[in-house]
Amino acid sequence: MKIIKYPKPDDWAALTKRPLLENKTLEPLVKQILEEVKTNKDFALFRFTEQFDQVRTTQLLVSNPELVAASKQIPAELKSAIKLAKRNIKKFHQAQKEKIKPIETSKGIVCWRKSIAIEKVGLYIPGGTAPLFSTLLMLGIPAKLAGCKEIVLCTPPNKNGNINPAILYTAKLIGINKVFKVGGAQAIAAMAYGTESIPQVYKIFGPGNQFVTKAKELVQQNGIAIDMPAGPSEVLIIADKSSYAPFLAADLLSQAEHGSDSQTILLSNSKAIIDRTMRELEDQLELIPRKEIARKALNNCLFILFENLEECIAFSNEYAPEHLILAVKDALNFADKITNAGSVFLGNYSCESAGDYASGTNHTLPTNGYAKSYSGVSLDSFVKKISFQQLSKEGLKNIGSAIELMAAAEGLEAHKNAVSIRLKFLENV
Amino acid sequence: MKIIKYPKPDDWAALTKRPLLENKTLEPLVKQILEEVKTNKDFALFRFTEQFDQVRTTQLLVSNPELVAASKQIPAELKSAIKLAKRNIKKFHQAQKEKIKPIETSKGIVCWRKSIAIEKVGLYIPGGTAPLFSTLLMLGIPAKLAGCKEIVLCTPPNKNGNINPAILYTAKLIGINKVFKVGGAQAIAAMAYGTESIPQVYKIFGPGNQFVTKAKELVQQNGIAIDMPAGPSEVLIIADKSSYAPFLAADLLSQAEHGSDSQTILLSNSKAIIDRTMRELEDQLELIPRKEIARKALNNCLFILFENLEECIAFSNEYAPEHLILAVKDALNFADKITNAGSVFLGNYSCESAGDYASGTNHTLPTNGYAKSYSGVSLDSFVKKISFQQLSKEGLKNIGSAIELMAAAEGLEAHKNAVSIRLKFLENV
Repeated sequence: MKIIKYPKPDDWAALTKRPLLENKTLEPLVKQILEEVKTNKDFALFRFTEQFDQVRTTQLLVSNPELVAASKQIPAELKSAIKLAKRNIKKFHQAQKEKIKPIETSKGIVCWRKSIAIEKVGLYIPGGTAPLFSTLLMLGIPAKLAGCKEIVLCTPPNKNGNINPAILYTAKLIGINKVFKVGGAQAIAAMAYGTESIPQVYKIFGPGNQFVTKAKELVQQNGIAIDMPAGPSEVLIIADKSSYAPFLAADLLSQAEHGSDSQTILLSNSKAIIDRTMRELEDQLELIPRKEIARKALNNCLFILFENLEECIAFSNEYAPEHLILAVKDALNFADKITNAGSVFLGNYSCESAGDYASGTNHTLPTNGYAKSYSGVSLDSFVKKISFQQLSKEGLKNIGSAIELMAAAEGLEAHKNAVSIRLKFLENV
Repeated sequence: MKIIKYPKPDDWAALTKRPLLENKTLEPLVKQILEEVKTNKDFALFRFTEQFDQVRTTQLLVSNPELVAASKQIPAELKSAIKLAKRNIKKFHQAQKEKIKPIETSKGIVCWRKSIAIEKVGLYIPGGTAPLFSTLLMLGIPAKLAGCKEIVLCTPPNKNGNINPAILYTAKLIGINKVFKVGGAQAIAAMAYGTESIPQVYKIFGPGNQFVTKAKELVQQNGIAIDMPAGPSEVLIIADKSSYAPFLAADLLSQAEHGSDSQTILLSNSKAIIDRTMRELEDQLELIPRKEIARKALNNCLFILFENLEECIAFSNEYAPEHLILAVKDALNFADKITNAGSVFLGNYSCESAGDYASGTNHTLPTNGYAKSYSGVSLDSFVKKISFQQLSKEGLKNIGSAIELMAAAEGLEAHKNAVSIRLKFLENV
């Protein structure tokens, strides 16, 4: 943990740089897994599941009894919590539906766009230490709202060949019935190319380890869309002297516990608040179970002192954090100055955990500076927009000669002719 | 040109397949160009421009006098045509602006999304036989409307070191001042990594040859966003006996003249209309300057006879064409059944050329079946959406325990603690 005082703008580029996670051996390995699944389908999945998950199975689809049984294993209060989160997420994403707006661009020419669900989508939920049923809410709810017909969920089995019941409960709650016990690059390959058990999809969503991430990157080159490129999770907090250090420390820790590569940054115009937060961090760190992971992540935590909040905002925009917490007085006034971020949390009671779970916003967000050009997952991520146009005879007459001139100037005479032949026809009727 | 009669659904997969354009030697070559530009910047651009465009230059930026002079070279009526197109395109894209809609998901929790322009974008316009100033309209107008601060345009010089005046005129008309005389993979590299002359951008748009396409695919792996994956242009026409064969032939030809790899398909429930269109094609082909290109493309044209229009629509949805012309009676009634397409043209007077140039819709559209998951370029392509949330004390109290339960169930105690510490604080105030 180090404090950087008043860095000059020239030094910002170095400070906003993410660690480069290049792993040259990964690509050939993942390519091989993809090829194997493409060729041997289910058989390859059985083999990789045995190799990577230590589970011998020939049954990938979670059965309906398994889905039903999972519900009984979940405490009632957790079920209520998940339902509350579902309600808020649904409400926020439902509001993203767009009405069709026909526009008459010239007299007789009506154009519009229509959102239509991507028919087949695949969701990936990692296994491991944290059973991310919250991510399933974030992906499954907008997929259902959009109207995707085929929603496939892949998640790796534990050593006993089972899926965490909270994930199964959530899947059933949302209405996802095709849950497959398969993880890693092989799961991505299965959804990209299809196997005997697992349907091929057009777009793949969800987080994962470096194998999963690389597999998504590679299948994208085969025309399978993906939600967004991935990198380690990040939080950047901007605090002033009105901030309460224990909250700041708790927010930094909640990011740091994700993984030792988590990125945490605190910007402030107050040296006192930085010092207090650093002390709080030491105290709170001792209290959390994942403290070894968090400590490693916090080793790279940047505490940066700036002259004023405007500089903090400018630095944050340059960094483009996945999560940005504006823990400052009158935070809403600063919201308008944010130009690059995934999701912004305003004020002392808008902690990142709220958006991670239950406030309604999506938690699948661009990391690694991608917030400069990518949006987080939303209803939009599960639809594509088709444009439509209808020209009346009058409409074509109104723009026909413009089209002819432009097509001719581009040397595309057949484009011109498609209009000329119609205009001539209209002269004669 | 061949007619396929009543293909069974089992055969559709083969019929909807695009030709595989795999070129194994391309990737190492393009990678080398990218590396060179990354390392040697402008110097590499000078070298590649000499090598590939036969132009020796050390001045990449088009000067303001050049931009002004271009205007004088353009006939007044072409200028008017371009302005008309600009007006319609602007009108259609302007209507895509979204208002901020704050949603109270639970009492005391307000969430919203805000569209913010991608600060720096790069547009690529190919050189070659067709100076595609229309594509510059399609990319530059929404970029300006979105509010992108830095818009960089790269396009290759001709053998005399000049850019086509229609492209320069259009750039100036839209308000793009940073026009660089550089093309190919080296232009994509320059915009992705930045050089002394050319600013680095966050997202790259525009069509190009296989070098450009491969370069965009490769820089995407470095986190530079791109508009969409690319493939040869396509039209699929659905016609019934109400269609007029000369129009259908003209539309097929306007697609076919793009390149010998252009994909053209005519579906109909009327053998007579197919026969008539085939005869028309032969006649019209003789009249267009690019007939050799068009003839090659038409060699692969599919004419498919189906029992009824419903089957035609179903096949089209499976094919997911870039352009779909519904040249049928009451076309609007069929519009609702379209689930996969880039842009749909309804009725006998909505020719593809209209959307290519001047109706207002965007002509940068997903090819190669990507319309199953990708949208065409729109205002959305030039913004990212940031989510915001503000929780009051009451808001946090309303969802706090749900967050605590969910975080604990995911094994993320620090996430839980970020809420608990606030709830405890609120108990004491």
